[in-house]
Amino acid sequence: MKFYDCRMAPNPRRARIFMAEKSIVLPTIEVDIVNGENLREPFLTVNPRGLLPTLELDDGTHFDEVMAICRYLEELYPTPALLGRTPVERARVTSYQRKAEFEGMIAGSEVFRNGHEKFSVRSIPGAPHQSVPAIPGLIARGHQTIGRFHDWLENTLSRSEYLVGDTYTMADITAQCAIGFHAWIKVEIPENHAHTQRWFRAVSARPSAGA
Amino acid sequence: MKFYDCRMAPNPRRARIFMAEKSIVLPTIEVDIVNGENLREPFLTVNPRGLLPTLELDDGTHFDEVMAICRYLEELYPTPALLGRTPVERARVTSYQRKAEFEGMIAGSEVFRNGHEKFSVRSIPGAPHQSVPAIPGLIARGHQTIGRFHDWLENTLSRSEYLVGDTYTMADITAQCAIGFHAWIKVEIPENHAHTQRWFRAVSARPSAGA
Repeated sequence: MKFYDCRMAPNPRRARIFMAEKSIVLPTIEVDIVNGENLREPFLTVNPRGLLPTLELDDGTHFDEVMAICRYLEELYPTPALLGRTPVERARVTSYQRKAEFEGMIAGSEVFRNGHEKFSVRSIPGAPHQSVPAIPGLIARGHQTIGRFHDWLENTLSRSEYLVGDTYTMADITAQCAIGFHAWIKVEIPENHAHTQRWFRAVSARPSAGA
Repeated sequence: MKFYDCRMAPNPRRARIFMAEKSIVLPTIEVDIVNGENLREPFLTVNPRGLLPTLELDDGTHFDEVMAICRYLEELYPTPALLGRTPVERARVTSYQRKAEFEGMIAGSEVFRNGHEKFSVRSIPGAPHQSVPAIPGLIARGHQTIGRFHDWLENTLSRSEYLVGDTYTMADITAQCAIGFHAWIKVEIPENHAHTQRWFRAVSARPSAGA
C-alpha cells in the first residue's frame, strides 16, 4: 500500500491520526496542493478528482474518501478498534463521525474556501476541471453551522469522556481535526464550553495528535 | 425497534429500500414533515435535529443518520450483504455511497431548498431552532455538481453492472434515490448516458424500489 498525503491539509490528518493510533506506517507520497500538484498529472491518474488523502493498494485499487480508507484499514488492523467495538458503537461512531464531518469539517471548508481569493473559482473540492465560483453567503452560514457543532460537542461531552462513551474513536478524530482546521478561519471552542475544552486538551495530548 | 419514517422524503427511502432488500419489517411511525410535525414535540424528543429517518432501539437509543441505521441493521441482518462482502468491497461501498450522497442527494437538496419558498429560512436540514436563509447561488452550483454526479455514474456503470461490481449495494440505493429525488427539481439522467439508463431501469424494476 501507498498513502498519498498532504501535510498541511485537514482531511489527510484524519487518516494520519487514525493510522498513528494503530501504529500503521505506510510509504507516503507528499502532494503539494498549494502549488496545485493535486490538480495535474501524474496525480490526476491516481485520483481524477484531485483529492487527498488517497490510499493505493498493491493491485492499483484506490480509495479517495477518508472513511473508505479508515474502514479498509480497520479490517486489516483491527486493534485498537476506532470504528466501534459492538454493533451499537459502530452505528454511533458512523453517526457522530458524519455529524463532525458535516457540521465541523465541511462547514469550516465552506467558510475558508468561499472567503479566500486563492479559491475564488475552486470553492468546492473534487472538481479539478471546472470553475466553481465562490458564494460569499456560505461564510455566514458556515459560521452558524459551526455554532451548532460546538453546542452539539459540548452537550455530548457533558455526558461522556469521548464522543462515543469512554473510548477514543474516529468520531473524536474528525471532531478534533475540524477544530484544528477552524484555526485557519480564526474560530475557537467557546471559552465557556468546559467539557469540550477538557476533551480537546485530552485528545491533543495523545501522541497521535502530532501525526 | 421502531422506524420513524416520512413516505415522501428522499432520505427515509434509502433506509426503506435497504430494509426491503433484507425483508426487514419494523413498526413504523409516519412523521408529517409537510406540516412541520418533525419540527415540534413529541418528535424533537426522539430527534432534537428534527431529521428523518430515525431508528429507535428498544432501550431508547436513537440513530438519525441513514448510514448509521443501515450499518446497525447490516450487522443484525447480514443477508444479503448491502455494505460489501470483502474489505475491498466494503471500502468501495463506503466511498461510492458517500459520493452519491454528496454529489447526488445533497446537491439535489441544495437546488431544491434554496429555490423553494417553503424553505426560504430553512435552507438546510437539521437546524429546527434556527433561521437559515436560502442562498440562491447554491442552485446553479448544485446543478453543476449533479452534472459531475451524472458523469461519474456513467463512467462507473460503463465498467460494471452495478456501482460496486456485479452486486447491488447501498451505493446503488443512494444513487437511485438521488435520481428519484431529482424529479422534484426536473433533472433527469442525460439521454445519451446509456449505461446509467440501463442501470436505472434495472434498479427501478427491483421489488424494493417500491418501498
